[in-house]
Amino acid sequence: MRFNFTKIMAKELTSRSENYSQWYNDLVLKADLAENSAVRGCMVIKPYGYAIWEKMQAELDRMFKETGHVNAYFPLFIPKSFLSKEADHVEGFAKECAVVTHYRLKNSPDGKGVVVDPEAQLEEELIVRPTSETIIWSAYKNWIQSYRDLPVLCNQWANVVRWEMRTRLFLRTAEFLWQEGHTAHATKEEAVEEAEKMLEVYADFAENFMALPVLKGVKSANERFAGALDTYCIEALMQDGKALQAGTSHFLGQNFAKAFDVRFTTKEGVEDYVWATSWGVSTRLMGALIMTHSDDNGLVLPPKLAPYQVVIVPIYKGEEQLAEISEKVNALTTKLRDLGISVKYDANDNKRSGWKFAEYELKGVPVRLAIGARDLENGTVEVARRDTLAKETVNIEGVELYIKKLLDQIQANIYKKAYDYRASVTREVNSYEEFKVEIEKGGFLLCHWDGTPETEEKIKEETKATIRCIPVDGKKETGKCMVSGKASAQRVVFARSY
Amino acid sequence: MRFNFTKIMAKELTSRSENYSQWYNDLVLKADLAENSAVRGCMVIKPYGYAIWEKMQAELDRMFKETGHVNAYFPLFIPKSFLSKEADHVEGFAKECAVVTHYRLKNSPDGKGVVVDPEAQLEEELIVRPTSETIIWSAYKNWIQSYRDLPVLCNQWANVVRWEMRTRLFLRTAEFLWQEGHTAHATKEEAVEEAEKMLEVYADFAENFMALPVLKGVKSANERFAGALDTYCIEALMQDGKALQAGTSHFLGQNFAKAFDVRFTTKEGVEDYVWATSWGVSTRLMGALIMTHSDDNGLVLPPKLAPYQVVIVPIYKGEEQLAEISEKVNALTTKLRDLGISVKYDANDNKRSGWKFAEYELKGVPVRLAIGARDLENGTVEVARRDTLAKETVNIEGVELYIKKLLDQIQANIYKKAYDYRASVTREVNSYEEFKVEIEKGGFLLCHWDGTPETEEKIKEETKATIRCIPVDGKKETGKCMVSGKASAQRVVFARSY
Repeated sequence: MRFNFTKIMAKELTSRSENYSQWYNDLVLKADLAENSAVRGCMVIKPYGYAIWEKMQAELDRMFKETGHVNAYFPLFIPKSFLSKEADHVEGFAKECAVVTHYRLKNSPDGKGVVVDPEAQLEEELIVRPTSETIIWSAYKNWIQSYRDLPVLCNQWANVVRWEMRTRLFLRTAEFLWQEGHTAHATKEEAVEEAEKMLEVYADFAENFMALPVLKGVKSANERFAGALDTYCIEALMQDGKALQAGTSHFLGQNFAKAFDVRFTTKEGVEDYVWATSWGVSTRLMGALIMTHSDDNGLVLPPKLAPYQVVIVPIYKGEEQLAEISEKVNALTTKLRDLGISVKYDANDNKRSGWKFAEYELKGVPVRLAIGARDLENGTVEVARRDTLAKETVNIEGVELYIKKLLDQIQANIYKKAYDYRASVTREVNSYEEFKVEIEKGGFLLCHWDGTPETEEKIKEETKATIRCIPVDGKKETGKCMVSGKASAQRVVFARSY
Repeated sequence: MRFNFTKIMAKELTSRSENYSQWYNDLVLKADLAENSAVRGCMVIKPYGYAIWEKMQAELDRMFKETGHVNAYFPLFIPKSFLSKEADHVEGFAKECAVVTHYRLKNSPDGKGVVVDPEAQLEEELIVRPTSETIIWSAYKNWIQSYRDLPVLCNQWANVVRWEMRTRLFLRTAEFLWQEGHTAHATKEEAVEEAEKMLEVYADFAENFMALPVLKGVKSANERFAGALDTYCIEALMQDGKALQAGTSHFLGQNFAKAFDVRFTTKEGVEDYVWATSWGVSTRLMGALIMTHSDDNGLVLPPKLAPYQVVIVPIYKGEEQLAEISEKVNALTTKLRDLGISVKYDANDNKRSGWKFAEYELKGVPVRLAIGARDLENGTVEVARRDTLAKETVNIEGVELYIKKLLDQIQANIYKKAYDYRASVTREVNSYEEFKVEIEKGGFLLCHWDGTPETEEKIKEETKATIRCIPVDGKKETGKCMVSGKASAQRVVFARSY
């Protein structure tokens, strides 16, 4: 009988059914993804977590460049007065933010440490960017004079700060990492097309790399980005039945161009304000990734984003046997790498193989290979897949092709699992009474709504559910609002959310 | 006679001889590398400049990973009290920094804009990181208990802020981008080895990618990083004869481990403090790159860091001729890309070819190809290299191999040019009288120094020259200090610097 290391490890993680929220926190810490820092609300992204984020960045960056975007970098600080220039924007962002008021410290008069030098007060306070529309549009004013200067298609990878009172690793932190695209266009149509295009890029990335099924939709006015005319979004569903907004793309109209007086001469020689979009995803995606696929044994990673896709553990007695195994492994590793598969060979003799099995299970490595003495004799290798925990003993000859297919299968399987789960908890609800019961069970509820902020607000107050989106691919079935009975053009998606 | 577009363009740039400093600023702006922002001292890195920085990042990141390092991310903010924990460190960094004192704004009572909410004052002020030793070592305290947890080899790509009073694009800005490696080791020897290894990585990168000859050395005590026991550095020489510190690697001893109480159990079961290094290069390298190679016509980029290595400009009359040229170009582009060469084909019909020639010269594209009607007839292409401005007409058949070699030649040639220039202005100086005359001419002066901070300080005050480094590869010739006449173990490198 093989010893069940999985159980040993699993004991350290709270189970999902016991306490979902605690399970998530345990997992983030124990899988070495991130931890809280000495600064309230700010996290440390640890090397293993950062390696996943780097994989996400690389794919997204490639997709942005393939759709014609370039990277640039704009200042961390925003003059306080800039935030006030766009009326809705300041309401949404100026409130909870980090404010720089001084630019110097001096030795404390009591000789203990340093204090803020009151003589080094800034004339105008600087805000640590919560988002960069204002500072970027103040730069675009100098970049854009004519239709020939358009479009401007910039993206920035940066840190931003929003002073959140209740924080959770990756999901809601005071500082987080993100990318923010900011584009400028000559026409409304082109800007809308851009905002929609980037929504498609996000959905493509979520589904094909994160294995995360998402609903594409438009936000209701209440949930819109502060300063946008329309906010497009992708919405995902976590295993606890709560929704998570995974990415947004905003059509900003001419709001920021007007706020920063960015005008251009059209092809026809007329002066007009420039049209804008902005779009972003953040390290919050890490939270979505973790919560969508992982189980009570630990992380489950999609092969396309795993820092290493295959780990190989030797099971041996003595140096000689290890040398024999290592020779086999080295040959296999070369073949795997030639197929573009990333591999870690863990021959560390400080740790027992059982510890390693549990560790890589916890860390979500998609495929684990083990080679022992019997495998040497038989020319085999044990292949374990993380998603189903199934194990097989396979001929080592040609196993690299088997693994390549297996990685694709795992990628497809975890997507399907998440898709099926979402489908199982997505349902149409037709009365508000039924809604109040169903919302307690979690999931996406498809309901008719009269389109008014008042009804939306009432539902939110009474049930804590919000409209996640008005789906763009949804069937266009008319009906009557479940609350007011007024006409509704199509069902919208309600859920409680992160 | 071909019209000399170069001259037209050159008129827009101040020449180096006229005003070197103005030439640099003009070039950074006109080549679209960076510009000042609305926030004092903070720059906007424009897409073309950022594309070069991305190339630098990619190579450095690869080199860091190949030497066993991993990336992570630590908070932007540092609690004020952390800075005081290492006595030298606080002296060096706490003085000119951005201080966050509040976390909320509110609507102004007069209805105009927003003001800082006095009720939202932080209990302890937060400093925007000028460097991250303190926040990182406060995290390492939880990561390290035993020798088994060592070494920790983390790098971080991040923005940092130092409140500089006199700023210059890339060379000295309040906010800049950089990488900072922070490593933890079980022994002093291992930490010293790491600091030296990273110096080699920096020198390798500077010489082989930036085509920037550098001196490797150790800083004198006066010039050391605040908190380090030894600072290793690479020093480069700009075309105006001033030195530029291009990268530093610090052996930090146990200073930060003691400040943050980071102890570990050794293999022998004894408790000891952890040994540390840190090392960094920043967007300042962009300044070094620009100043080392560029000329009065604009930027000169090393092929290994150019956003595109080859630009192709069609010279045509009418759609039909353009179509013929484009067919040739597309075939060539495929061949070039297959060789790993990045290519831009600029068939934009809004700009004249003369404008394009000048533009790509200004932007430092290493190789420019032009194809016109006569080339179509003759099966040729005009090849212009940016470094020497030489032009040749070459058979288009097999030109891709010619270009591949040419790119290598350009890379080698600009390195040699910079190397020869440096050699021509590097000389031994044996008396202080001579020194005072020679320092006015710029360049590196190799002199005997008695090793005391007092002498170094006197020289700095009287001549504005500092010791750039005590070279590690220098000949070990003993002598007498040019100022005090006391014994000197080897010549050190003096220069005025950026």
